[in-house]
Amino acid sequence: MNQQAVFHAPDPPFCCPVSERSLSLRLRAARGELQRVEVIYENKYDFYRKRRRAKMKLAYQTELYDWFTVTLTCTDTRFAYIFRLYGPEGARYFSEDGVTETYDYKKNFYNCFQYPYINRADVQKTVPWMEKAVFYQIFVDRFNPGSGGLDKSHVNMSWGDIPAPKSFAGGDLDGVREKLDYLAGLGVNAVYLTPIFFAPSNHKYDTWDFYTVDPRFGGGGALKRLVDAAHAGGMRIILDGVFNHVGEGFAPFQDVVRRGRDSEYFDWFIIRGGFPRKEPLNYEVFAACDYMPKLNTSNPAVQEYLCKVGTYYITEYGIDGWRLDVADEVSRDFWRAFRRAVKGANPEAVLIAENWHDASASLRGDQFDSIMNYSVTKACLDYFAWGKLDGQHMAWKLSELLMRNSDPVNAMMLNLLDSHDTYRFLTEARGDREALHAALSLIFMLPGAPCIFYGTEKYTTGGYDPDCRRCMDWTDSSGAAPLIQKLAKIPRTGPIEISSEDGMLILRRGKYALYINRTNRRARAGAVTVPAMGHRLLKGEKDL
Amino acid sequence: MNQQAVFHAPDPPFCCPVSERSLSLRLRAARGELQRVEVIYENKYDFYRKRRRAKMKLAYQTELYDWFTVTLTCTDTRFAYIFRLYGPEGARYFSEDGVTETYDYKKNFYNCFQYPYINRADVQKTVPWMEKAVFYQIFVDRFNPGSGGLDKSHVNMSWGDIPAPKSFAGGDLDGVREKLDYLAGLGVNAVYLTPIFFAPSNHKYDTWDFYTVDPRFGGGGALKRLVDAAHAGGMRIILDGVFNHVGEGFAPFQDVVRRGRDSEYFDWFIIRGGFPRKEPLNYEVFAACDYMPKLNTSNPAVQEYLCKVGTYYITEYGIDGWRLDVADEVSRDFWRAFRRAVKGANPEAVLIAENWHDASASLRGDQFDSIMNYSVTKACLDYFAWGKLDGQHMAWKLSELLMRNSDPVNAMMLNLLDSHDTYRFLTEARGDREALHAALSLIFMLPGAPCIFYGTEKYTTGGYDPDCRRCMDWTDSSGAAPLIQKLAKIPRTGPIEISSEDGMLILRRGKYALYINRTNRRARAGAVTVPAMGHRLLKGEKDL
Repeated sequence: MNQQAVFHAPDPPFCCPVSERSLSLRLRAARGELQRVEVIYENKYDFYRKRRRAKMKLAYQTELYDWFTVTLTCTDTRFAYIFRLYGPEGARYFSEDGVTETYDYKKNFYNCFQYPYINRADVQKTVPWMEKAVFYQIFVDRFNPGSGGLDKSHVNMSWGDIPAPKSFAGGDLDGVREKLDYLAGLGVNAVYLTPIFFAPSNHKYDTWDFYTVDPRFGGGGALKRLVDAAHAGGMRIILDGVFNHVGEGFAPFQDVVRRGRDSEYFDWFIIRGGFPRKEPLNYEVFAACDYMPKLNTSNPAVQEYLCKVGTYYITEYGIDGWRLDVADEVSRDFWRAFRRAVKGANPEAVLIAENWHDASASLRGDQFDSIMNYSVTKACLDYFAWGKLDGQHMAWKLSELLMRNSDPVNAMMLNLLDSHDTYRFLTEARGDREALHAALSLIFMLPGAPCIFYGTEKYTTGGYDPDCRRCMDWTDSSGAAPLIQKLAKIPRTGPIEISSEDGMLILRRGKYALYINRTNRRARAGAVTVPAMGHRLLKGEKDL
Repeated sequence: MNQQAVFHAPDPPFCCPVSERSLSLRLRAARGELQRVEVIYENKYDFYRKRRRAKMKLAYQTELYDWFTVTLTCTDTRFAYIFRLYGPEGARYFSEDGVTETYDYKKNFYNCFQYPYINRADVQKTVPWMEKAVFYQIFVDRFNPGSGGLDKSHVNMSWGDIPAPKSFAGGDLDGVREKLDYLAGLGVNAVYLTPIFFAPSNHKYDTWDFYTVDPRFGGGGALKRLVDAAHAGGMRIILDGVFNHVGEGFAPFQDVVRRGRDSEYFDWFIIRGGFPRKEPLNYEVFAACDYMPKLNTSNPAVQEYLCKVGTYYITEYGIDGWRLDVADEVSRDFWRAFRRAVKGANPEAVLIAENWHDASASLRGDQFDSIMNYSVTKACLDYFAWGKLDGQHMAWKLSELLMRNSDPVNAMMLNLLDSHDTYRFLTEARGDREALHAALSLIFMLPGAPCIFYGTEKYTTGGYDPDCRRCMDWTDSSGAAPLIQKLAKIPRTGPIEISSEDGMLILRRGKYALYINRTNRRARAGAVTVPAMGHRLLKGEKDL
């Protein structure tokens, strides 16, 4: 047995309390090595003298591993457990002491695995509405200018021209509100807005005032109207929270510019020397942008300030959660405080971090609910656009990504093909609309909430920022909209099966099955044939 | 290459910010497989175009793995990194995408490892005094009756008799204070007291009132005198915090007994039905003890109450931290709040959880500093008492235990041979004093704070509770005291090397080296020979 492949830890995602009475377990072993896995368990105080057994299911395969799963249900939730592995050399035990031929139950209190008690506050829950959420990401300046007669004197480009870094096209929040019916028609039920707080740029990632909705976007009134209209139509609104850094016009930073160390806000930033200075730069910033000073989120005063911002928009405007910009560069200690504050204001508010990497360390219940799932983006690019993965490796990769996090977290992942920070997917795929359709079908089948970048339904193309932030094409063209409308109706409940057959990637859940064939020949799985470079989405035996 | 053996995650203990400018990394691979490992790193915004390299050191070996380590120091702490592995098939890259032959730095933002920014609040720190702490655990009723003339009418056994479950011997806090000089003479500089709050039992794990120090122990005045005297002598005092459950006389529980669901405290407990009932038991308890109702630590009101208890004894009495009873059955959400509260009151207060298992999930900076390191206890029993490990396997096991947690955590582990909850070590070792001496030497050499259970220095024996809680033997016998005095002077700074040679377990740090030979023949390592079943502790070339 490849003992190094065998892994379990009594901690998410390998051990996860999914209700006050049930515990989900995973065990990992080398692919193809174990014929059978059982978990042997009991209340920890009785484990020395009696045990129950449950068979684990081979749920996922990745290139290196088999993943076995089971959910145990008990009234006494003081779980002690070990595993029984049936492998090439016969049966073995697996405990905290590793793989062994024998196990001494009388000494189990030293080396069994344990989840010692499921306390209500520790249950990993999916924010309920996320299970049905279909997101649409809007870059506000480029989506739709409202009819409300706002001052548009800042607009410096014509709608539809290719944007430059400092272009203003004039989109605003009333403009979003006026398109809610359009979005609902598309099947969308959640909108994620890029930043809207007062800031000089078109993107507003350089906040000058967290408590002022930018007047160019219509101010607080427009936000309130938008949230109320959205809620009236059963739609959710989440805002982009930029808490890693601010714009240089942020009043506390300006106070430090004026008063240096004498400012009560000096420690709100990270400055070497008495005053912030641009040449040479002596304060921490986002990336290398001297107009975006980094906040010191280790400072309790900053933590308190930002927690209040976080709850203010929930209690005053009723927003449904936050997308958190550059979350991975912000203090983890702060995120724990922020989660406590936001969930205290609304337990159903969702917290979605920007983190392009394996973020499992921040998805264990103390920080975020979810991330922008750029690992799925990358897998889709590798598979559909760049030819780096075949069907089998894509099946393994998607399974691997699911095994990074617990099921309740997977159900909240924001699965996206592109965003304001990437090339448009259709551009990466060199205009291949079949690839886009198949990829959209994929992210609507996967566990997690699909997120459509505005314009995708219009086959909008574009390279890197600012080209990916073109104006929304409101001309009458159906594009991918009919597909998205169909995809939005697929329920995302129940376990998903991911496999490969005849070179295809195959996803199955309930009555639905998605076959994707990226080979240059017709492929077949059972009775289903799929044309070269094509895909089929079936409900029962019928194409959707 | 055994790819399944290769592991890293940008999260403690594999990636740990140890200062605001430095990051400690570990990489794991199959034992004996890699000749060389490098980390390739840079500020994440520049990683696509330039890189630095650092060689990693093979620091520890376990039965299955080699562990490579390095600490990187930078002024720009936005770390992006991957590894270069030199193995049997040549050089490979290792990133979030696994082991690969090539690596595309231009796409690194999708799949490099990263520690995106070291924020001050996230640095894993060792509570400074823990680096030199030598603990002594006292079961208060059995240690020493003070000379203060307290009412001793509850005493129902003679000092020195074998205790029964309900015996009272009359030890108290003034009695502890009167022995501080004795303890200082032994080399002890930190005392951990089993519970002292008002409770009917001799052990007081059944708290009736968290705000009353038990009058039988001398009340709050005696605690204050003890802490003040200890501090005057440079000694620390930590208390046993029993927050998983209470005794049935706890006023909020009695309110629920009287008023059922009408009590404002009903949700402080976990009760099925309208009133708590013993037959059949309808409320959650510790183990199966109906007189110890479990607290609902998911309830914000309970969290707030216990956080106040936690800070009260720090601010009002100046205690130096908490040992936290049955910590693993308590809500993790509560511990995060408790840590925030206690560290807010005194950042140098230490939090040591009772957890007999791999507790790494709670030792990543959000919950505890340390645990009672029963895994070391078990390893010592297997090696010294039960003959289950030879020198090589003991070296591997100790290394494995060190690799469970980060170095700052390892430096705070409470390393113990026995406690009020186990057989006495000497009894397990069937009276073998050489085994005890070698084991004591071992826990004084290991990273972490050694903890001596009262009476060990007197060769006290005893089986399971209550036999391990015998009265302290104050007769004049030196016992292991001279050894402990010597061991207490060994500095525990700098890296430790753990190895095996000629069947021996060998630990080396700085000028000190410990050779333990549990074979039935003389063993030799270099110029050092050690008798059968013996040990030698050297400083330079001299026996200590």
